[in-house]
This record gives sequence, structure tokens and C-alpha cells, in this order.
Amino acid sequence: MQIKQAPVNPNSGSVTPPDITDVQLIGGFWGTLQDLNREAIIPHALKWVNKLGWVENFDNAASGAPYRHKGREFADSEVYKLIEAMAWDSTRPGGEKHLPVIADLTKRILGAQEPDGYLHTRYGRRFQEPRYFDMTFGHELYCAGHQLQSAVAVARTNANSDYVEIARRLADHVVRMFGVSGHNEICGHACIEMGLVEFYRLTGERKYLEQAAIFVERHGEGSLPLFEFGRAYWQDRVKVRDLDVLEGHAVRALYLASAAVDVAVETQDQDLLNALVLQWDNTIAKRTYITGGMGSHHMDEAFGSDYVLPNDRSYCESCAGVASIMFSWRLLLATGEKKYADLIERTLYNVVATAPSREGTSFFYANTLHQRVAHTEPAFNDEGVVIRGGASGRQEWFEVSCCPPNVSRLLASLGGYVFGTQENSLNIYQYMAGRIETKADQKSVVLQVTTNFPVDGKVSIEALETPPDGITLKLRVPHWLTNQVPIEHLGPESETSGNAVFVPGEDFVELKVSTGDQISFEFELVAKYVRADDRVDASRGCVAVMRGPLVYALESTDLPDAWDLSDVYVSTGAGLITDGMDVKVHLQHVERKKEASVFDAQECHGSSEMQVVSLVPYFDWAERGASTMRVWIPEVLHEVN
Amino acid sequence: MQIKQAPVNPNSGSVTPPDITDVQLIGGFWGTLQDLNREAIIPHALKWVNKLGWVENFDNAASGAPYRHKGREFADSEVYKLIEAMAWDSTRPGGEKHLPVIADLTKRILGAQEPDGYLHTRYGRRFQEPRYFDMTFGHELYCAGHQLQSAVAVARTNANSDYVEIARRLADHVVRMFGVSGHNEICGHACIEMGLVEFYRLTGERKYLEQAAIFVERHGEGSLPLFEFGRAYWQDRVKVRDLDVLEGHAVRALYLASAAVDVAVETQDQDLLNALVLQWDNTIAKRTYITGGMGSHHMDEAFGSDYVLPNDRSYCESCAGVASIMFSWRLLLATGEKKYADLIERTLYNVVATAPSREGTSFFYANTLHQRVAHTEPAFNDEGVVIRGGASGRQEWFEVSCCPPNVSRLLASLGGYVFGTQENSLNIYQYMAGRIETKADQKSVVLQVTTNFPVDGKVSIEALETPPDGITLKLRVPHWLTNQVPIEHLGPESETSGNAVFVPGEDFVELKVSTGDQISFEFELVAKYVRADDRVDASRGCVAVMRGPLVYALESTDLPDAWDLSDVYVSTGAGLITDGMDVKVHLQHVERKKEASVFDAQECHGSSEMQVVSLVPYFDWAERGASTMRVWIPEVLHEVN
Repeated sequence: MQIKQAPVNPNSGSVTPPDITDVQLIGGFWGTLQDLNREAIIPHALKWVNKLGWVENFDNAASGAPYRHKGREFADSEVYKLIEAMAWDSTRPGGEKHLPVIADLTKRILGAQEPDGYLHTRYGRRFQEPRYFDMTFGHELYCAGHQLQSAVAVARTNANSDYVEIARRLADHVVRMFGVSGHNEICGHACIEMGLVEFYRLTGERKYLEQAAIFVERHGEGSLPLFEFGRAYWQDRVKVRDLDVLEGHAVRALYLASAAVDVAVETQDQDLLNALVLQWDNTIAKRTYITGGMGSHHMDEAFGSDYVLPNDRSYCESCAGVASIMFSWRLLLATGEKKYADLIERTLYNVVATAPSREGTSFFYANTLHQRVAHTEPAFNDEGVVIRGGASGRQEWFEVSCCPPNVSRLLASLGGYVFGTQENSLNIYQYMAGRIETKADQKSVVLQVTTNFPVDGKVSIEALETPPDGITLKLRVPHWLTNQVPIEHLGPESETSGNAVFVPGEDFVELKVSTGDQISFEFELVAKYVRADDRVDASRGCVAVMRGPLVYALESTDLPDAWDLSDVYVSTGAGLITDGMDVKVHLQHVERKKEASVFDAQECHGSSEMQVVSLVPYFDWAERGASTMRVWIPEVLHEVN
Repeated sequence: MQIKQAPVNPNSGSVTPPDITDVQLIGGFWGTLQDLNREAIIPHALKWVNKLGWVENFDNAASGAPYRHKGREFADSEVYKLIEAMAWDSTRPGGEKHLPVIADLTKRILGAQEPDGYLHTRYGRRFQEPRYFDMTFGHELYCAGHQLQSAVAVARTNANSDYVEIARRLADHVVRMFGVSGHNEICGHACIEMGLVEFYRLTGERKYLEQAAIFVERHGEGSLPLFEFGRAYWQDRVKVRDLDVLEGHAVRALYLASAAVDVAVETQDQDLLNALVLQWDNTIAKRTYITGGMGSHHMDEAFGSDYVLPNDRSYCESCAGVASIMFSWRLLLATGEKKYADLIERTLYNVVATAPSREGTSFFYANTLHQRVAHTEPAFNDEGVVIRGGASGRQEWFEVSCCPPNVSRLLASLGGYVFGTQENSLNIYQYMAGRIETKADQKSVVLQVTTNFPVDGKVSIEALETPPDGITLKLRVPHWLTNQVPIEHLGPESETSGNAVFVPGEDFVELKVSTGDQISFEFELVAKYVRADDRVDASRGCVAVMRGPLVYALESTDLPDAWDLSDVYVSTGAGLITDGMDVKVHLQHVERKKEASVFDAQECHGSSEMQVVSLVPYFDWAERGASTMRVWIPEVLHEVN
């Protein structure tokens, strides 16, 4: 059996993922971001993990001499995530430059691994706290999970075999320690579960799958303490299979849910899979922001109760965006349902693409939907890095710096999420410029996708090569489509199936294509107003603007000087103006009476002239200096005549 | 000079507070709560501080032998606050039963005081962390502040002179350690400042005032670290006199602001006082809930940015309500402005009265304005007490149990907030049933106030004794008054000033009364809708209901069985029904279509019949079992015909 080279490679399911090398994203929105990832994000992140001593921790651990561990309990994991990013990126043209870096890091990490396979630079040495001393926040198994995930990436890209051996010893250690007859414990931050399943898929060694299943099943048995944020924080309140909506810390919840899909698929556990499908449905229906962002609480970085989605306190951690895509992609592979691809698209454009700055050297940790104050000074630690993600603006690095490497590893492996194959079809899930080169029935398929999407809606797909009798292409019908879109389908000789049409509300449009076929269509990317379920307090009486998958934002930078963002109302009656990526709305600015108190105030719209003001794509906000911003804009209650 | 027996006793200012013994609240809303305080809250709290070893800490410290400190860093302060509550309560008939308890605690606390005056049971002994090791969260000066405040109460009620001596030695120690030539530091939680000023007022020793001023001025110089929540958390970002709105941790901010008023008044620092007046104005205008609750964030228990007042994540710590009253009362005494009394009334009825259960044995720590989930299991620590206040329902006790004793000490001293005197008038600020017995120009004044307010709006005041030429009575015109209210004024012989009238929007109505005069009036207590400033996201498109100072709430308990609180809209067109304390609204319940996602949903009011449903006074919610609740209710957008 050929080892599949995908980020996620289930042994069964409805859809087979592509190999990482099957898709080369070239130019366009995402190819450009992949280039930024290679040229800016990865070097920037490497600089920081070196500068702060997070790599040096491994050297120190290897030396045997006492040392002061640098960074937080999960510092090791940032190095692993960067290795994963470099491994995936190494498959792109020019990516071989990462290989010596991976080799160097491998040597240093190898030195830090204990003879029995244990690997963590902060615990277990005679001058340190003992191993597994703190299952709640020690993050040892969390780091191990990231090491396994990165080792899978390294293995599947043939980047370094020594690094994979580290993982094997580490995984064996974990199985020995926490197996059926081992310690009946789980880690306070899920991650090991996903790492173990994928390592099983890589190696075929069933003990790793079994260990992952053990960890998944232990969640909800209360082995972790009931602390300030409740057991839900670390998904230890209820068994995964008994839960109907995600709860607690968003990244933890999504990592565990992703792993649980993996376990369900590999063990043919349909009950567990059904529970996860239900959790996804309810989480999207009640606990997700319009951007795809997840996590309503700053305090515990957690999901809120149903409909608790405050905009000015939205957390929407960048990592939760990455983790949400992991969860959705696994469910897509398992079930074939296209709604998961819709959420992936939403999250890619509005969370993942939002996190890094245009330069790739600063990042949002939290992705608020409403910035009330243009600039709040972030809190720096002694090392000059920002302590937490709540501050305004993107930041160079964080004390808790999970997000930049997480975004990086997703960007590097993004090709793996573009299409999938089913028995009789090749399904295009994301419309990204690039080249698809894969096999169908052992026969080559080469497709060239040309698009500026979402700058405009034009997409053309050229079938450069197919098996002699052609292939069935299934094109995803985006959830945001409002009008039918005809597909022009030209064969080498003539029009072959000109009546294929994207129909709003349907899942896919199916085409039979053969070598030389040229398919083209143009999605209408016209901005439209969206209203939220009005059980969400914060968005009641407001509209947001979307254009295709893009959420737009109103930024103070675009307002007339004398206007304050909090005194602005949108006239939905006056219509939206779409001109390519540019979207403009009609706004009314009100003068307010001076109020004695916030709770006594009556509505008091002194009215002013209507003005046409530009919005920015949400992913592009805060790129022009400190600003206030809102995604949900209150509607004018009484039109000015 | 006679020592004034008031909780707050400025040496100058616009208004002179009453002695604690000048007001006996008897029956009525607040007299009943004072009885509950004595009979239930104080014994309940004493039981817990004993049970958890927080009193035993003092015995252990006195013993000299090593021991494990029980409770959090601020456990000592809860004992001090209870002593303060008992001291104030000891002035009420039957209150002398507290005196032996105070005497016993005094002995035990005295034993724990170090020879140099230092007093804290968690630090400084050879088996403990050193003194002042952690100025951020050590809470040593915070505890000292509470000890001083409680000692002032003990002194002013002649409850125990030994306890006051403990305070003198402690205050001297603080001055030695942190004076001009001492350590240039402040405590992470303000409190010492208020304690020192009041101790100065008690003793006349100026060094205590000077030390308080030093601490106040040091805030904003950055002696505390920039940590996760920013320096604003502990009011160390900006100098107090340069701030224009309260920020950071609400209780810390309000304690410091209260102390700063005290310092401004005692040092004739008009600039500082002006800054505090501005801070109060802006805080009320932009950062306060309709209940008077303060604090928008769970994470850092802090004020939000302007208009960040989410209802379903409102924090509104009970302690912040108590502290807000401290701040307002000091500004009232300094300026004479009646708006401060309005906020005190609002906060008393909707925060202070809400915190304890009817039985006085459980308490809200946070006072949410929107309970989305009927029951969430609180997080208990190993000792069986709730760790933090975010859980649903009132709880018996908390690991951080600042709130119950804080509410207790305020209730015990509440008489001190009822009236004040100016050169030519006695001003009634709060309409509470009871007896006022004071002096005007060395002559006795005795007034009997009879009222069931806010059950109904009737108030009568009988002048049992006045100086021969009478006194001028100034009656506060409540901010919630909408109609003129005539005053019936009967003298012993005839009607004397029948044309006095409460005029909405005015500050006071003035009357000249003499012995035997009988004054009576009836406020119209009809429920009305209130709309919030619509810069507050969470309340946009909603109304709240108030009746007099009472905020009302819609509780699921009162809904028809099949109705869900989140599917209910209020028809403001259909009017409100007021019948005494009972208030009813017309509600419409909507059926919702099943939505795919919270962000795609369109408004979809399937309509149902209108029903008349009762509201409950907010202070009385959650008394009938687990429920969902909301103060701000969305308005019906399209009336059903």
C-alpha cells in the first residue's frame, strides 16, 4: 500500500483526500499567502522561537546540566508546529530550503529525548518538577501530540526520517504510560489524541489508535479537577459521545472533536460519529460568529452558551479557526457533506487570512468583530512579547504564541483541503488558483484552475489530462450563492455540456470532463446584507455585509473625520454598491444629546446627511493604523427624508 | 470635639453625615433586611469563616508553630468585614449580642499581630513567604485596609477598644514601611487608602492621611507590573487625577476612587475632586448597567470600554455595588449633589438587595442581567465552596468570599446613608421606614418616617420634635419621578405649606417643619419602559421595565410551560399593567424556523397569541428555583394583527 501523503488520511470514509503534492496553489489569494508563509511567517516565527530560547530549551535539556526553562509549558509545541509547517511547505517548489533547518532541529530535539522516549524540556529532570506532575496545565501530552502531528507531516513529505523515529519512541512511551493498564489520566489540553490517530495512520500500528480512543473515551470521566472554569473547560464534564454541542475552551474542544472523528472513522463507531455531526450542527447554529470564529469568552477562551456571541468581547482565537477547519475537514471526509466545505471557506477567508498582517510579521491572536477603542496598549512580559491576545492590533509575537505557527502549518498544507475524490468523482471544494495533479483509477488527472477569486468571481478549469473516458468533476455550490450561475463547458471540438448550472441551495454541480475540456463560470460577487438570528443580543437590529465568502467591516479609517464609529447607522434601504472588491454602504451619522446615564437614555437620533462610505474586507482591517471597527452595523431606524 | 459616629466622617464638605445611631430603620424594606442581616447573614458568614479555618488562621499565627494557612490571601479581610458588620449592627436594639463575639475575635487577632504591628496570617513567618513579597496579589495592605475600616466602625460604636489599638499599631507599621522614605510601592488591590483616611478622621493623626495621599498618588506611576490584564487592572496605568473614567477591576477602581475623594476633601485638593466627579459622571454615562451594577468582564472583573455592557456576560459583582455606594456617598457629602443619592438608591434596590437570598444564607457574587441557561453547575473547590461567582443561582459561600461580608457591613451601616445635614437643612436622601433622631444647632430633632416604599409610594414623615423655630427639611426628588407629586403638610393646628410639590427633574423639595407637623405624599409607582443608549449592543431593540427605583426582570418561571425565554418579545404598544408590586407585560412568543447557522438566519417571526405575563423585581429573581431570566426584553418588531 502506498502511504498517502495527506495531512489527514483516514482508512475509510466517504471522500479520499488528495496527497499534499497533488495541489500546487500558484498565485491568486491563497498561493500568495502560501508564499508569504514561506518568505515571512516561517522565518519570523523561527526568529522568535530562537530569540526567546524555546529552541535552546532542547539544547539545554540535551546537555544534562541544570537550566532555567524558557517560555511557557507549551513552548516545545511551537517548535514542533513550525517543523510541521516547514515539512508541508517543503513540497512546494523552492521548499527544499527548509530541509536543513528541519535536520538541525531534529538533532537538537533528539538530544532532549529521554532514553524511555519521554520528551518535554520543562519537566522530569532532577532540577525540574516531575513528569506528569500537573495533568491540568502541564501540557506534556499536548506537546507530544504536536510532535506526533509534525512527525506525520515530516514522514509524509519525506523530510527527515530521524524526526519520525523521535515520534515513534515518544508515542510508545505515551502508550506505555497511559494505556489500559497505565495511568488513568488525560491531558488538560487535547492534542495527543489527533497526533496518535494520525501516527497510527502513518505506521499502521494499531496500539496508537487504541491509545487515542482511550484518551477520547476518558474525557468526561472527571479525571481532571473541577476548577474555576468548570470541567467543561477541558471537555471533562460529559463524555464526548454524550455531548450535543461543543463547550469549554474552544481550541481544546475542537482538537478533541477532530480526534474523536478520527477515532470514530477508524473504529467504525457510527454512534460517536453521529454525536460529532450533531455537535458540529449545533455549534454552527448557535455558537459561531459570522466570520466562522469560535469562542465567545476572553476569560476561559471558551464557547459561550447558545447565542452568547458578543461582538465587542468576541474572542475567536486564530487557533480556533485552524482547529475548526480540522474538525470540518474530518467530517467532510467521513460524510462527504459539502456544508463542511462551506464553513472551511468562511473560516479561511475571515479567520485564517485575517490573523497575519500583509507583511506576515504580526498576528491577531483574538479576532474581535467590534473594536471599540482604536488603541489599547498591549501587556508585554519581561521579554518584550505580548502576554495575551486581547489587545488591539496585530502583534509580533505572544507569550502564548500558539496562533502564528498554527496559521503557518495550515497555510503550508492548504493544498490538501482543496479537493477530494469519491469513487466516481473528483470534488472541488475550494476555488483556488493552481494546478491539480492526481490519479483516478491509476490514470493521471491534471487540472489547471485559473481564478482571481474572490477579487472577482471568474473561475476557469482546464482539463489538461484525464483518463481516456474522462472524469466526473463535482463542483461545490457555495452557500452564499444567490443566483443561478451557468457553466460554459467547451470541449476540444465543441460545446459538450453547456447546460450545467450552479443552483443556489444545491450541494454540487456535476460535469463530465475529458482532456482538453475548458470549463468556465463566473460567480456573482455582489455584496449583500446579512442579519443574525436575533437571539444574539449583540447583533440585534444590525446588519453585516458579505460578498461571497468575505465578511466586510466598517473601519473608522474610512469615515469622515468628524464621525465616530459608534454614531453611525447604515441605511439598508439605500442599497449597497459593489465594485469589484470595493463595497460601499450608505451611512447616516447622528448627533447625540448628552446623556445623564447609559440606562436612562432614550433614542435620540439627531439626523445628518447620508454619506457613501467604503467597507473593507474583514481580513484586511487594521492594516492602515489603529482604528475602531465593526462588522455588525446598526440599521437606521427612521430614514431621513 | 465630639467624635462623629458615622461610617464616613469628612472634616469638611457640603453635607454632614448622620451618626450611625441617628437613624433606626424599623420594618419596611430595609429594616427587614437589616434584621435578616443580623439574624441570618452574619451568623451564616461567621459559621463559614470558622468552618473554613479563616479564623483559626489567627490562632495558628498566634501559636508560633508552623501551620498551613487556610483560604486565599485575603481570608483575614473577611473576618475584619464581619467585625465591621457586627460593630455597626451593635448600635441597633438587640445588637449588643455581637460584643462578646467581637471581643473574642479581637483577642485572637491581637495574638496574631507581630510586635512591630504587622498583621497578616499568610506571610512573614519563617515557614511562610516573606512579607510584602508579592505586592500584586499578596493583599497584605488590602487586608490592613479592611482591618482599619473595621476598627473605625468598632471605635465609633464603642464596641471594643483593644481592637482599635490593633489598628493603631498596624497603621503605624504601614506608615513606617511605605511612607515618603519607605518602600515606593502600592498594593495590587486598593483598600488601605480608605482605611487610612478614615483612621485619620477617627484619631486626628495626620500621618495616616498623608500616607493615604501617598498611596493614592502612587497609583499610575507603574510600580506594579504590566501583566496580562494591563496596568489599568489595578489602577496603575494613569494617575488618579488624570483619569476621566473608571477602568480596570471594578472593586479596586471604586475603592481607590472612594479613598481619593476622601483625600481630596481632607487636603482641599479641588483638582483631584473635580477629576473624581468627572470619573463618576463618565462611568455612569457609559459603563454602568441599569441596575447600577458595574463591571462588564468576567475575566478581569473589570469595567469594559464605553458602552461595553453585555447582559449575558455582565459581571456586576455584588462588592462593586457596595463600593459604588461608598464612592457616591463620599461625593454626595463633598458636593451636596443629589444625583449621587439617586445612584445609591438604584444600587441598593437592584444590586445590594439582590445579592442575598430571602433566607440570607446564599448570595450572588456576580449579578447577571441575562441568565441564558437555567442551571450551570458551579465549580467547587476541595472544601466544598464555590470557586468563583459566575455560576447560576445564589451560592452559600465562595472561595473568594468578599461579597457576603461586604453586603453585610453595608446593610448594618445603612442608616448612615439615609439623610445628611447642611447648614440650614436636614436632607432626606432615601425614603426608608424608621426613626431619625439627631441634633440641629444642639437641639433635638426627631422624625418618624412611615412607609412601605417601594411596595407602594406612600411616605409620611412626622416631626415628633424640632427646635422651637422648626427646621428646614429637604426631600430628594427621585430621578425616576415622572409626574408632580403634591405634599400634604399638616401642622398641629392647620395646613402650613400645602403647596410644596415634588417636581420631576428638580433636586429637592424644601419644607419648613415644626414639632407636630405631619408630612405625607405618595409617589406614583407605575411601571414604565426604559430604553438604553443604543450604543450598548446588547440592549439594542430592547426595553427594560422599571417601577420607581426597581428594575424588573422576566423570569422563565412566569412563562407558559411551552415558551422559551429566548423566543419571547414584548409588545410595548400593548402597555404595562401595574398592580402594587406586580407588573405585567404583553408578550408574544414566536416559533422559529430551524436555522442552519446563527449568522445566516433571517428574522422569522412566526407569530403566536399575545399573553400577559408577570415580571419580578430583579432583586427577587432566582428565588423560585433554577430559571432563565432577562432584564432587557426585545421588542416585538411587527405587531400581530
